[in-house]
Amino acid sequence: MYDFSPTVEQEELLAKAKKIMEEDVYPAEKYIVPGVGLPNEILKPLQQKVKDQNLWAAHLPEHIGGLGLGNVFLGLLNEQLGSSPIGPRVFGTAAPDTGNTEILLNAGTQEQIDKYLKPVIDDEIRSCFAMTERDVSGADPTGLQTTAVKEGNEWVINGRKWFISNAGLSSFAIVMAVTNPDAAPHERASMFLVDIGTPGFNLIRDIEVMGDFSEGGHWEIEFDNCRIPEESILGKVGEGFKLAQMRLGPGRITHAMRWLGVMNRSFDLMLDYALKRKTRGKPLAEFQSIQNFIADSAAEMSASRLMTLHAAWKMDQGLDARKEIALIKFYGAKILNDIISRAIQVHGSLGYSKDTPLEAFYREGRAAHIYDGPDEVHRMVVAKRILKEYKNKNKDILV
Amino acid sequence: MYDFSPTVEQEELLAKAKKIMEEDVYPAEKYIVPGVGLPNEILKPLQQKVKDQNLWAAHLPEHIGGLGLGNVFLGLLNEQLGSSPIGPRVFGTAAPDTGNTEILLNAGTQEQIDKYLKPVIDDEIRSCFAMTERDVSGADPTGLQTTAVKEGNEWVINGRKWFISNAGLSSFAIVMAVTNPDAAPHERASMFLVDIGTPGFNLIRDIEVMGDFSEGGHWEIEFDNCRIPEESILGKVGEGFKLAQMRLGPGRITHAMRWLGVMNRSFDLMLDYALKRKTRGKPLAEFQSIQNFIADSAAEMSASRLMTLHAAWKMDQGLDARKEIALIKFYGAKILNDIISRAIQVHGSLGYSKDTPLEAFYREGRAAHIYDGPDEVHRMVVAKRILKEYKNKNKDILV
Amino acid sequence: MYDFSPTVEQEELLAKAKKIMEEDVYPAEKYIVPGVGLPNEILKPLQQKVKDQNLWAAHLPEHIGGLGLGNVFLGLLNEQLGSSPIGPRVFGTAAPDTGNTEILLNAGTQEQIDKYLKPVIDDEIRSCFAMTERDVSGADPTGLQTTAVKEGNEWVINGRKWFISNAGLSSFAIVMAVTNPDAAPHERASMFLVDIGTPGFNLIRDIEVMGDFSEGGHWEIEFDNCRIPEESILGKVGEGFKLAQMRLGPGRITHAMRWLGVMNRSFDLMLDYALKRKTRGKPLAEFQSIQNFIADSAAEMSASRLMTLHAAWKMDQGLDARKEIALIKFYGAKILNDIISRAIQVHGSLGYSKDTPLEAFYREGRAAHIYDGPDEVHRMVVAKRILKEYKNKNKDILV
Amino acid sequence: MYDFSPTVEQEELLAKAKKIMEEDVYPAEKYIVPGVGLPNEILKPLQQKVKDQNLWAAHLPEHIGGLGLGNVFLGLLNEQLGSSPIGPRVFGTAAPDTGNTEILLNAGTQEQIDKYLKPVIDDEIRSCFAMTERDVSGADPTGLQTTAVKEGNEWVINGRKWFISNAGLSSFAIVMAVTNPDAAPHERASMFLVDIGTPGFNLIRDIEVMGDFSEGGHWEIEFDNCRIPEESILGKVGEGFKLAQMRLGPGRITHAMRWLGVMNRSFDLMLDYALKRKTRGKPLAEFQSIQNFIADSAAEMSASRLMTLHAAWKMDQGLDARKEIALIKFYGAKILNDIISRAIQVHGSLGYSKDTPLEAFYREGRAAHIYDGPDEVHRMVVAKRILKEYKNKNKDILV
Repeated sequence: MYDFSPTVEQEELLAKAKKIMEEDVYPAEKYIVPGVGLPNEILKPLQQKVKDQNLWAAHLPEHIGGLGLGNVFLGLLNEQLGSSPIGPRVFGTAAPDTGNTEILLNAGTQEQIDKYLKPVIDDEIRSCFAMTERDVSGADPTGLQTTAVKEGNEWVINGRKWFISNAGLSSFAIVMAVTNPDAAPHERASMFLVDIGTPGFNLIRDIEVMGDFSEGGHWEIEFDNCRIPEESILGKVGEGFKLAQMRLGPGRITHAMRWLGVMNRSFDLMLDYALKRKTRGKPLAEFQSIQNFIADSAAEMSASRLMTLHAAWKMDQGLDARKEIALIKFYGAKILNDIISRAIQVHGSLGYSKDTPLEAFYREGRAAHIYDGPDEVHRMVVAKRILKEYKNKNKDILV
Repeated sequence: MYDFSPTVEQEELLAKAKKIMEEDVYPAEKYIVPGVGLPNEILKPLQQKVKDQNLWAAHLPEHIGGLGLGNVFLGLLNEQLGSSPIGPRVFGTAAPDTGNTEILLNAGTQEQIDKYLKPVIDDEIRSCFAMTERDVSGADPTGLQTTAVKEGNEWVINGRKWFISNAGLSSFAIVMAVTNPDAAPHERASMFLVDIGTPGFNLIRDIEVMGDFSEGGHWEIEFDNCRIPEESILGKVGEGFKLAQMRLGPGRITHAMRWLGVMNRSFDLMLDYALKRKTRGKPLAEFQSIQNFIADSAAEMSASRLMTLHAAWKMDQGLDARKEIALIKFYGAKILNDIISRAIQVHGSLGYSKDTPLEAFYREGRAAHIYDGPDEVHRMVVAKRILKEYKNKNKDILV
Repeated sequence: MYDFSPTVEQEELLAKAKKIMEEDVYPAEKYIVPGVGLPNEILKPLQQKVKDQNLWAAHLPEHIGGLGLGNVFLGLLNEQLGSSPIGPRVFGTAAPDTGNTEILLNAGTQEQIDKYLKPVIDDEIRSCFAMTERDVSGADPTGLQTTAVKEGNEWVINGRKWFISNAGLSSFAIVMAVTNPDAAPHERASMFLVDIGTPGFNLIRDIEVMGDFSEGGHWEIEFDNCRIPEESILGKVGEGFKLAQMRLGPGRITHAMRWLGVMNRSFDLMLDYALKRKTRGKPLAEFQSIQNFIADSAAEMSASRLMTLHAAWKMDQGLDARKEIALIKFYGAKILNDIISRAIQVHGSLGYSKDTPLEAFYREGRAAHIYDGPDEVHRMVVAKRILKEYKNKNKDILV
Repeated sequence: MYDFSPTVEQEELLAKAKKIMEEDVYPAEKYIVPGVGLPNEILKPLQQKVKDQNLWAAHLPEHIGGLGLGNVFLGLLNEQLGSSPIGPRVFGTAAPDTGNTEILLNAGTQEQIDKYLKPVIDDEIRSCFAMTERDVSGADPTGLQTTAVKEGNEWVINGRKWFISNAGLSSFAIVMAVTNPDAAPHERASMFLVDIGTPGFNLIRDIEVMGDFSEGGHWEIEFDNCRIPEESILGKVGEGFKLAQMRLGPGRITHAMRWLGVMNRSFDLMLDYALKRKTRGKPLAEFQSIQNFIADSAAEMSASRLMTLHAAWKMDQGLDARKEIALIKFYGAKILNDIISRAIQVHGSLGYSKDTPLEAFYREGRAAHIYDGPDEVHRMVVAKRILKEYKNKNKDILV
């Protein structure tokens, strides 16, 4: 049915990753500048160490410099990296670059690959993904308003985007714009590669948010007659949504993988403090209310972990895992937030302070209910899928 | 890490079991007498069919007439059987007999095995397990008060037990009694085989309860100078708790396995009615509140199923699965009750009536929070185990 | 803003009611026949005692034999009566008769009042309310299918009803039937008084349900060319929904009032057993998990009580309390079930047995999420009302 | 029983407060410097306006410049003020000064009152309250380690405090220190008035926390042979805990009152956006998942409001309200956080950004589970109180 076992070789890689996290990454966290990340003089040597140990950009296929070990392995690896806000960057798997490289790999021309893919993979440049608009629900991209009109051998882009993560330090953006307003809903838009600095591409403001894990902000962007060469289109005209789906699906499971790391670390901090801190003459660990936190968290983490790896395993088998990914997206988001919150509660005021990573986890964690589709949409979509399967007599027993 | 895949041969067995459930067992449910079960003229032919298809008593090792296919397989099989209150009896895996055969297999002398084990396995006679006492928390068996005193070549038992399931139609009981009050807490008691009808073994009353899946009631029993032969002891003097633990551990995971069947069936009923029933001109399935029920149930069932199979898999590997079993015992109990309750809610008054199996599931399901240790105790025990592991630096990543 | 204080005179009445409950009603519970109620030889003297103390049928206006003390007082009184399944019957406030008398009082002709009202109030005869139909969501009564057609000076009723509580021992039914299928949705139906025994009024079957507090079952009923005299109509043609709303609104708050009694009694049983029962050498009351049950229950009961009395107070002021009633209907239903469930959990197996009233409360309590509109409908309706108020700038601060 | 009605005069005051909030305070929020508050040039005129309208420092008795209108009125007023982080400061009721003035009023000598009370009330100077220590659970103040030893006509204070809110801009601190280590647990400590700037009173660091409503930080403080005059003691030697309790009790209800304002504002933002924002062609307000958020929030706000006012009313009657205050402290904290979180969820990314006050509410709200005693302690304490009342047969019906 399913087999989530890493090979011996994979276990060695995971152990190496864990060692780097504990010996190098956690200690480097004190140098993080919130909303900016690690200074290069700290970051670059860490990245080099990862490259030296052959752990760099593990999500990529082998021929392009990755490890090509499949999604279950990535789940186990991201569980390590996800335990620190800087883990993904140090290991060459930082969003939104990872998603962008995926699109480039799948739809890029040789010229596009040469120009954009290699330097992004090597973390020489960064990138952003400009889809969301203010007046369009992220869950309903068919309503996009930004347009790209062909004029001569150029595309002219007009419109506004917001919450474009990483735009502040990107060299280029992948931009979604409507190329055929009258087409069927999922064929209205196309994707474009736009260099930052192109006239008419204006960074309006960095929208401040609750969490500060993002290094390059979340920007509001204006396209004001922004002209780009004809060959800047990614894939074919009208393929925008197809490419976006390809990007978002695996992205969602990557979130769930990283969350496992945050949960593990929060849980360990909870255990640690519960054993250390005394009140009324005995350690917190001896109070049933605290034991209940621990037991509930353990059960939920176990659920979250198995569901994430199961979805990854289905992907590795070439099976349709959309249902499993949707389930763990909303279910895991709640578990993530609950476990962080309990860890804070065990720490009391200390947990509420910035002396532990928990408060940053808490702020960042809240976004998990929202990004890449709010819980409410995933619930609706997955229910409809299950109902349809049931109607068609091919409902999987699992759900 | 883990592999829950059934072999091709196992898949065939599971398909056969599913077929019997759907074609024979569900239709037979209308003959159930609540609190009594199926009449023999309906039951026996069904059991014969199961025996003919080589699916009888699958939990037992091969040499004693079972299938010996391990706990993951049992999980998948119980998922089928558990979907009907009569499934386990039809397939020769009804509690409390299963637990009792386990003890007999492990600790019985040849004479005990000959006299008791074979007929119980063949469902010719039934049995009960008499441990719980009124004034002693089930979660704290060290406080047992029933005593067994050696007089000549007899043991003389005195005391009271209650909630002894199945006593009303048993041929014998396995009785836990204190043989050495001054020994260490877990060496105070021993187990005995007592034939029903032995003078001094008195059935006081059948304690009525909320659920009616039990066929032989839940009895209050009195031992009033009940004399049994010396050789009625099971195992050695003082081994009572050791044997009880051996029985309870796997029992708990069996509960979780059967629950999967109840969840699956409740979930399917929910889907079915949501598609069929209209209100305000459209099927319930199109209302978001109902879709939320479906999505949440799917996520929780997925969690429950993976955690149960994972615990079973660890047992099959010879690994310590006490933590995993405790987690799914309390976590699964909540999921079970929530899913049944949502299925009822979707059905409205119909769900509250006895026209569907849901209301019986609901009443029976409530006991899952209590039997074999209340949630509160499992939470406490598992938290202590995790804290200890953490302290000793051997905490498993899973939890 | 609000004042929920009983007068001194009211406090005396409440104390008298409490005394009767504790000294007479609770001890009489052992004579309850589930699904039937108290035998008359036990019931009638209790009712007489209530009448003697001037506490009978308190919900009615004074001129018709009630107390006329308003809804806050009724809330406080029902809190007493609701703590036992037989309380309402003993005090002359049993459903569905109470709702029916309300309709008769408001819309009955003198002849109808003479024939039906007086004997129902005196508990000489019982009645039922036949609205719900199988293929029509109770929450969407505009879809009613039962029809009443005028032929000469008779109405001819045809159709099916189900879950008609109390039909098994009623002398008459108030029946809702469509009189003008083409009218506006809320003017399609009318109400009729139909004597049990009228040819064509057929009791099909008593639909068994989870709870057993109802004395007269929940029946499926067939109208097969059932002819009743012209003057059997209640109110005017087309007023069916108006009258039903008048009945249901206050009915819902009465549920919430009675629930307070169930909560109080469950809570007291929880406290009692927590103090009495020992495990691991100390009373359950000293374990934090049990203390958490107590604290959470106390908070929720407090919420439930204040919200119920607040809604009653608004009704007494002649203010629109539909929002408050809807809120406490679904919110209180959850609290009710949670508190009963925690009380059971504290009792362990004993709580699951019929040795305490808790298991009956649990079964009956489940219906609270369904009767008189499922939670999902109340949530939807109250949200729409709040949104409308907000839009119209007259949102009350309270919610 | 209870009466929460404001008089006509009080209603006028509340309306005036509401007007100031909406017309002056909300628009001023854009000038807030996180962690610092409003610049004086914005703040002072607002405060003057409040003073002019006779709404200043309403919590104080009339003779000292307050309104003296009781706790129910304060509840209704704080519901207004609490809807903005700057509300309390603008209205002269900012913590921790309010608590400190209370102690001064109750225990201060004429000299202390003259020196400290008047200027604090007038917001000319600010103050802090130094009780919490790192190694002592705030919920267990009997373990305090900071000492004050009498030497000659001076007290010499040594020790460390942390999370001392407002210390960064205070003119003086009220300090709790052990004066008699061998006394009974609640008589070990005394309170002292210490001027900032006294040698040996060292501000170590401002502990950064998740929320930024505090204007003067949360400081770690060191007392290193800090010598203060004999007459700096507040009240008598050994009265520290008595005075602290007097301060904390009402403080907790003040939190609950302010939370009502946060809930109201979050709820209104939720309604507003749900009506405005469209997805899939219709406003969010028409989706059941959003309607469920609204309905649940309305029910919980109603519960929270009634419980808060009820506790206030009991205080006004001179009744013991410790139980009610504890209940609303932990129950209200959960409601507060849930409502803010739902409001964020309705807003999607926008709710996660700093474009609305919701994300600041969310961060600040998390502390409600911790400050002035974590939920776990309130649950335990209130349960013990209820159990004791039950044992002594004087349990109030309310809980």
